[in-house]
Amino acid sequence: MSLREDCDYIVGKAIIAVQPDAAVYRALQGKTFPGGRVMLVAVGKAAWSMANAAKQAMGARIDSGFVITKYGHSMGPLEGITIFEAGHPVPDSASFAATEAVLEATAALSPGDTVLLLISGGGSALFESPLIKPEQSSRITEHLLACGAGIVEMNTIRKRFSKVKGGRFARHCEPASVFSIVLSDIIGDPLDMIASGPAYPDSSTVEDATRIADKYRLPLTDEMRQLLELETPKQLSNATAVVTGSVRELCLAAANAARELGYQPTILTDSLDCVAREAGAFLSAIARFRQGTEHSLALIAGGETVVHLTGKGLGGRNQELALAAAPGIAGLAGTAVFSLGSDGTDGPTDAAGGYVDGGTLAALSAKGISVFETLRANDAYHALESCDGLIKTGPTGTNVNDVTVLLIRREGDAAERKP
Amino acid sequence: MSLREDCDYIVGKAIIAVQPDAAVYRALQGKTFPGGRVMLVAVGKAAWSMANAAKQAMGARIDSGFVITKYGHSMGPLEGITIFEAGHPVPDSASFAATEAVLEATAALSPGDTVLLLISGGGSALFESPLIKPEQSSRITEHLLACGAGIVEMNTIRKRFSKVKGGRFARHCEPASVFSIVLSDIIGDPLDMIASGPAYPDSSTVEDATRIADKYRLPLTDEMRQLLELETPKQLSNATAVVTGSVRELCLAAANAARELGYQPTILTDSLDCVAREAGAFLSAIARFRQGTEHSLALIAGGETVVHLTGKGLGGRNQELALAAAPGIAGLAGTAVFSLGSDGTDGPTDAAGGYVDGGTLAALSAKGISVFETLRANDAYHALESCDGLIKTGPTGTNVNDVTVLLIRREGDAAERKP
Repeated sequence: MSLREDCDYIVGKAIIAVQPDAAVYRALQGKTFPGGRVMLVAVGKAAWSMANAAKQAMGARIDSGFVITKYGHSMGPLEGITIFEAGHPVPDSASFAATEAVLEATAALSPGDTVLLLISGGGSALFESPLIKPEQSSRITEHLLACGAGIVEMNTIRKRFSKVKGGRFARHCEPASVFSIVLSDIIGDPLDMIASGPAYPDSSTVEDATRIADKYRLPLTDEMRQLLELETPKQLSNATAVVTGSVRELCLAAANAARELGYQPTILTDSLDCVAREAGAFLSAIARFRQGTEHSLALIAGGETVVHLTGKGLGGRNQELALAAAPGIAGLAGTAVFSLGSDGTDGPTDAAGGYVDGGTLAALSAKGISVFETLRANDAYHALESCDGLIKTGPTGTNVNDVTVLLIRREGDAAERKP
Repeated sequence: MSLREDCDYIVGKAIIAVQPDAAVYRALQGKTFPGGRVMLVAVGKAAWSMANAAKQAMGARIDSGFVITKYGHSMGPLEGITIFEAGHPVPDSASFAATEAVLEATAALSPGDTVLLLISGGGSALFESPLIKPEQSSRITEHLLACGAGIVEMNTIRKRFSKVKGGRFARHCEPASVFSIVLSDIIGDPLDMIASGPAYPDSSTVEDATRIADKYRLPLTDEMRQLLELETPKQLSNATAVVTGSVRELCLAAANAARELGYQPTILTDSLDCVAREAGAFLSAIARFRQGTEHSLALIAGGETVVHLTGKGLGGRNQELALAAAPGIAGLAGTAVFSLGSDGTDGPTDAAGGYVDGGTLAALSAKGISVFETLRANDAYHALESCDGLIKTGPTGTNVNDVTVLLIRREGDAAERKP
């Protein structure tokens, strides 16, 4: 098996292990609901799979429902469920229309009714009914993305301009209860941040929002400034939530898959949050030191790195991370770095992430491609594409952050699969 | 013992272990020289210690010699040796005058004579006789430093504008032989790069130099452009060299000291070369994952990180690295990150590096200091100073890059010293 085959094997196993189906089944096991109606609302990139799993677990107990997921992420009709596809990472008119439909359907529920809210990554953009003009909202989101703001910062701002975020959706559903099942895509599983916490008391304050607005010099109108100063619910008596997926399970799954291939796995961290390309450089420095290792090694880091946009190229944080590791491992035998988003989408591309090995730099040089210039242009996609370094999974139906793997195969190690 | 005391103990032990004396003794052991004169030329921040050790090892066999070291780095007179102090990292008129004195003294040597060349970090700036006007040379150096150019890139350029670098000093010494003892301050010990390789065939080419000049848009006159295109010696029959110190020994010494304190040490890498603050973020992500560890851990990274200057504050790469780790380990008990330059000088400051622990962020916040703003201003020195986070060793007499340590002390671990 080649290193690239090892990569693909580990990717496949890791993604399968964090599919939302099993997670939703587990969360619903033994769960009973009050006697009233159960309305399903699934939002996020994994919404379809989560809704499908809930339907299979609960059958006709679910009266009706909605799925709001990213374009291309629906996998077909679900009985009794209205399915919307909408924009991500920037919300669009389809996001707003779908969310309005949910707000309308949940406006007149009774005590004893339950909203079964299935939340996964991407929910912030997909489940949104803005209090400001959509184009203002889009501009704020684009501004924050371009500044390299973290997801926590983005959500703190977006909550203030939204009818549903920051606990406001749960308040809207009163007197019905809201039971949330949450696939975590934010490090540390902060329930008020995942999908901007539509049914969880908001821990971010007016002060936090103001500080972030100043830090990134957000272009705010007077009206927006006033909304920023409107506090979000700090207590919700009708909402409960359970977390069912996280990046730690993704890392463990990658570690297990690597072990099956003969690598000794070590998880370095499950909360990597530094600049993507520097993480690549750091991992390549580790790779250089571990050459001549007695055992084949797999070093694994989970998390979500950041990219500061300086160019207009195509790429994503995982592709940048991998590409940035190429110079540092150039010429090293049996050494590869790969990184991918568990949702199958890295940045605005059709790739999940990138793969490089000791031969990548030479392959790029032969084509006249400079890693330095490529990174400056944020154009990792095209560089990786030219040397078969893209990892493409298609939409995976799950989203529990990213995983990065450094493989160092001992010389002569067969790394035989034990399937 | 407090974590800070553990830090200071490890720092002290690591620095002592890489003192140049023992290294120079080893290199001279059993070494014989031809019958002619032996002239000592020691350049770099460790030049005084290396010369002193050579004098002690060889006594009167050394006929005469020169030390060129950084201001404040001479530790007194040495018999028969002329001692110069000069500018670093930017060469000044004292650098040029000292180097001219060496060139004059080595201009009329005979076959059978030997130049014993003792090289340590900083030699690029200290041992310099420019082919261009000193102020042009300074401007180029300052331009490259401000752009965040790596030391390899800096040296590639500086060689072209120098009478001594890139093997040109050895050629100047012909027909005498040149025997170099090298304390390595560049990752991977590239002998043509350390102190810009005054006595080693130059591997960098006119093409390399031109590429770097374009990359950083160096302000070149026509005359400088012509010098850039003058090739350096690619073969030297009169020069031999031996490497005696490197960052790997520094890491091993830190690991041994940590082990004495009860930590299980792991060296992650000895060639860390990413952006300083991102290395701090990466290490803090590792720290978060390893909380609740069964054993006290010390994770060690050697190398030389880089800083991109965006502000006008005071600091250095080690101080930035440590400070940048503070938010990521905030509130974690028994967790510290420290980083220092083995030469005792981090950036243009009187500190060797920085120390932070789980309490640092709160201490800074209490003083109204934001890590984010501090890093934007490149002002780590003042922030660390305010919370006793500076590591000050004074000039150490050695220079084998930097070492960074993450300590995670198991709860209740006494971490008793076994001195």
